[in-house]
Amino acid sequence: MTPFSIAIHGGAGTILRSQMTPEKEAKYLAALKAALDTGYAVLEKGGSSLDAVEAAIISLEDCPLFNAGKGSVFNSEGRHEMDASIMYGKDLTAGAVTGVKNIKNPISLSRAVMERSQHVFLAGNGAEIFAREQGIAFEDDSYFFDQFRHDQWQQAQKEEGVFLDHNIAASDEKKFGTVGAVALDKDGHLAAGTSTGGMTNKKFGRVGDSPIIGAGTYANDNTCAISCTGHGELFIRSVVAYDISCLMEYKGMTLREACDEVVMNKLVKIGGEGGLIAIDRIGNVELPFNSEGMYRAYRKSDGNGGVLIYK
Amino acid sequence: MTPFSIAIHGGAGTILRSQMTPEKEAKYLAALKAALDTGYAVLEKGGSSLDAVEAAIISLEDCPLFNAGKGSVFNSEGRHEMDASIMYGKDLTAGAVTGVKNIKNPISLSRAVMERSQHVFLAGNGAEIFAREQGIAFEDDSYFFDQFRHDQWQQAQKEEGVFLDHNIAASDEKKFGTVGAVALDKDGHLAAGTSTGGMTNKKFGRVGDSPIIGAGTYANDNTCAISCTGHGELFIRSVVAYDISCLMEYKGMTLREACDEVVMNKLVKIGGEGGLIAIDRIGNVELPFNSEGMYRAYRKSDGNGGVLIYK
Repeated sequence: MTPFSIAIHGGAGTILRSQMTPEKEAKYLAALKAALDTGYAVLEKGGSSLDAVEAAIISLEDCPLFNAGKGSVFNSEGRHEMDASIMYGKDLTAGAVTGVKNIKNPISLSRAVMERSQHVFLAGNGAEIFAREQGIAFEDDSYFFDQFRHDQWQQAQKEEGVFLDHNIAASDEKKFGTVGAVALDKDGHLAAGTSTGGMTNKKFGRVGDSPIIGAGTYANDNTCAISCTGHGELFIRSVVAYDISCLMEYKGMTLREACDEVVMNKLVKIGGEGGLIAIDRIGNVELPFNSEGMYRAYRKSDGNGGVLIYK
Repeated sequence: MTPFSIAIHGGAGTILRSQMTPEKEAKYLAALKAALDTGYAVLEKGGSSLDAVEAAIISLEDCPLFNAGKGSVFNSEGRHEMDASIMYGKDLTAGAVTGVKNIKNPISLSRAVMERSQHVFLAGNGAEIFAREQGIAFEDDSYFFDQFRHDQWQQAQKEEGVFLDHNIAASDEKKFGTVGAVALDKDGHLAAGTSTGGMTNKKFGRVGDSPIIGAGTYANDNTCAISCTGHGELFIRSVVAYDISCLMEYKGMTLREACDEVVMNKLVKIGGEGGLIAIDRIGNVELPFNSEGMYRAYRKSDGNGGVLIYK
């Protein structure tokens, strides 16, 4: 049988067992499993890795637990500005959006940019105009309202005034909230996608690595599919996702060696906290992170799999 | 003496000798030479590659001949939306902006993002708010008005209605207007920067490769400094600038071999028209392009140099 596999993440950071209640933990595990199963079912039926990645990320975007889609954090204006990107390893096509508001599923908008525009990357109001033309689903602000996120934002405004760095804890939660998925389908094609609500109280239209092809997301049938979560600025400067692909293609590293080199060595040296999920062309899965925890799950057609939070 | 060098570009595309008047050609050559000399003078006095790159790009942004800064094309709303990025090879710091309006020198705003924010990449209104806080120079719309660009835009609107692809000629000019500079200073540090007004009549907040670290701009003291100009979507998907760095670092290619592989082979295969300027850590300069022409110039401390337009 042709191997196939999928991996997802729901963000990395200071996720400590000591700060987790059994109820909260159970909710996260169930949400990760639901998204994983949604994506795996697509692959099992012979669907494309692109469809599996989109389906898994929609499931995570629709869950208020994760900082993407419905669960997106508040920016400094009390709005929800989202970023997302998707890439197909079969033909290296890609789509991405940044700073979009009121889009129910930014990952689907990214895919529409990829498949139905002549562009790769659309920003802000322009991306929303394109979304309306394409019949992409919108939701009003109340859909994105969450009391916990709102309290986080209020505290961020109080603590930091005008500017909250993501390294500074807002309430008890210090994490890089982003969701992502990578998959290999039965036809041997890889795909990767990433979606995020960005930083709580973010200002200045800050763009992280999530919508950047090569930084937060990359897929190439010759090497691997990657989705990142972490300190976006350092991930951009390190071109993290494409770096792993290059280490495999040009230096002959295995997926594991390349992930170790980038996440546990290069990023650690510059203080680049976070992690990523990775699948190679034969279905190997790696889920490396250098932070305390990363919400993550994977399932392979050989029967292996898991849903994990801590180290 | 420690070698130092600088290279600049003013965009690539269908630039044919047959369509050029001697007067127009002389203007372009003079503007390129002025920008080159400005950057070279910084290096000669022992200034940093970062200062040289910024100074050369400011000179190009202030010249109405090039599609960046003052000479930026009109978007579909009749406005000028600009992108820019800069990266310093010494410490891999970087700054970038996309979709900014009324900024006199977007390259200087990119540098302010790099040096005075905690972020790498700021977009749209948010980037402009940051710019005002930092005392960055603004100009009103009339500063960016140019009759030739305006006529181009009118024709683009007439020809294409709602959407002009950059592959379709607007009047007699089919080119990827972008400016950039790369430099190696006497201390052995590399820097790269890119600035653009984007596509004539562009819609949907389209973002090209120019502000994307790894795609349009990259600098690393261990390998090279790169600034690209071309079909942005394909340059993003190919992560062009970082690909050259990886081919050198991981595969042991020379700067020339890496440039040939990416610009004359990989990009050509996918129809990725354009070019780039490149300098390595010992001051070698490459100016490869696969289009008809590229406005370009370079000068090395060993006395070599040139100001060129055609193949």
